[in-house]
Amino acid sequence: MSSLLANKKVVIIGPGLIGGSVARGLAQQKLDCEVTVVGRNENVLRDIVADGNASGYSTDIKKACENADLVLVAVPSLTVEAVLAEIGDTSAVVTDAASVKGEVIGAARRVFGEVPANFVPGHPIAGSEHSGYTASFPALFHGKKVILTPLDNTDAAAVELVTALWEMLGAEVLQMDVPQHDAVLAATSHLPHLLAFALVDTLSQQGASEEIFRCAAGGFRDFTRIASSDPQMWHDIFLANGEPTVTVLDDYIENLYRLRKVIQEKDSAELMTTFTRAKESRDRFLELLAAGGATDKQSP
Amino acid sequence: MSSLLANKKVVIIGPGLIGGSVARGLAQQKLDCEVTVVGRNENVLRDIVADGNASGYSTDIKKACENADLVLVAVPSLTVEAVLAEIGDTSAVVTDAASVKGEVIGAARRVFGEVPANFVPGHPIAGSEHSGYTASFPALFHGKKVILTPLDNTDAAAVELVTALWEMLGAEVLQMDVPQHDAVLAATSHLPHLLAFALVDTLSQQGASEEIFRCAAGGFRDFTRIASSDPQMWHDIFLANGEPTVTVLDDYIENLYRLRKVIQEKDSAELMTTFTRAKESRDRFLELLAAGGATDKQSP
Repeated sequence: MSSLLANKKVVIIGPGLIGGSVARGLAQQKLDCEVTVVGRNENVLRDIVADGNASGYSTDIKKACENADLVLVAVPSLTVEAVLAEIGDTSAVVTDAASVKGEVIGAARRVFGEVPANFVPGHPIAGSEHSGYTASFPALFHGKKVILTPLDNTDAAAVELVTALWEMLGAEVLQMDVPQHDAVLAATSHLPHLLAFALVDTLSQQGASEEIFRCAAGGFRDFTRIASSDPQMWHDIFLANGEPTVTVLDDYIENLYRLRKVIQEKDSAELMTTFTRAKESRDRFLELLAAGGATDKQSP
Repeated sequence: MSSLLANKKVVIIGPGLIGGSVARGLAQQKLDCEVTVVGRNENVLRDIVADGNASGYSTDIKKACENADLVLVAVPSLTVEAVLAEIGDTSAVVTDAASVKGEVIGAARRVFGEVPANFVPGHPIAGSEHSGYTASFPALFHGKKVILTPLDNTDAAAVELVTALWEMLGAEVLQMDVPQHDAVLAATSHLPHLLAFALVDTLSQQGASEEIFRCAAGGFRDFTRIASSDPQMWHDIFLANGEPTVTVLDDYIENLYRLRKVIQEKDSAELMTTFTRAKESRDRFLELLAAGGATDKQSP
């Protein structure tokens, strides 16, 4: 499969954590790809080329994409539309890495009238609370899942090329429809981030917040790790995926109210039932994670 | 300080994660303490002695505590009362490791009429989602905080001995009053555990729960790690510390509702403000953790 990428002209727009890790991964494969990184900060772009992780760079999206075979748009969700507009009509296969696919489909429709057959919406389920090219590393996608959400008119060869890219970087590629992707991500990623941001925010506004943070331990550090994530990126995600997030948030708040009542009524049996059920579900999740070949490697 | 423990007769009641780690830590110090572990499961008790982590064992609490200098009660919160009743009147310094101090003070009052001067309520802020002697390790308390909540009538020499024990095991010992301890722990530990249990529980009851767990990644694993904790222990904690937990839970739910509205109204500025504030607070927490000498070592 990976030979599909050999000698291809690849353009990476937005060489941050995701785009930078793709560039590093491609460089490691020595496929004689011609990789061009596109961004605004020329110092970063020059570093990437100097590091041997791209063959060239540009600050001009349209120019960089001329004659490209594959374009990866790795910018925050709400910037995808502007980037697609700058790319314009192209014969290259175009894919993206944004966390909300409904928003990206909408952006493509607004720009092109309909979603072009050579555009393959995609989302690597990989990340870190750190961001930018300096946080990127070639193994970021090892054992991780990438979800593609092709439409009925999406070109099969385009899907194949994008699949080959992610598999070459060590990921497992799944396909879902768009609403399914956005609902699953709302539950597993967007809601947990919201809960972590809200917890740290709530505690920071308590009277004794210094003391509270001083006494917090390892469990709290792990639980709130995702609250150190990039505010701009998560701002974009919640604006782009508001409805599915609010839907699962409402289920969650309902469960919190139930547990609040259980605690107030000292309902011993119901507490044991809930905690035991949650522990069993979480242990099952760990089994799925292990079965999926996911490594236990932490992001940096 | 650590010489205070030399040649002392120490009894550890409940050699699980906490009690077992204390036994292992004491064994490493080679202070010629005579350490007796007390529990129900003789196979485990024999293992501890065979491992060289105790000089003897007993299944009889009262007998084991006769002639002891220091007794550590390391059992789940709601079992402390029964254990104190079995210990009865003693000249030994008695301390505990339960997560809720109001409950323990109440238990001591119910058993003895008033809290004895030789009883020092304590709480090591250290743990793991794993439990039992097999999960214990001698460095569990390295760089961790232990909070003692002595009362007005508590004997100063008793506090000194218990402080020496925890400092010898590598912990930093703080003192707080009882309501302050229980409020701080509700915020930093009990609420996060409730939120994690509730999240896994909510998602396990969604229609596509298999698919949801299959697509969850590293952030979700870390966020929900504490939902793999011992259900019985957390059942006890929420029954014992219901009121302070519900108080901070109400603040949290109010913040969630605010964020729900912010998302629905696509209030871009307020999203950025909240996420930026949360990220800054979490980064400050990491600084406090580092400044407190806390190691970054994970529990096993």
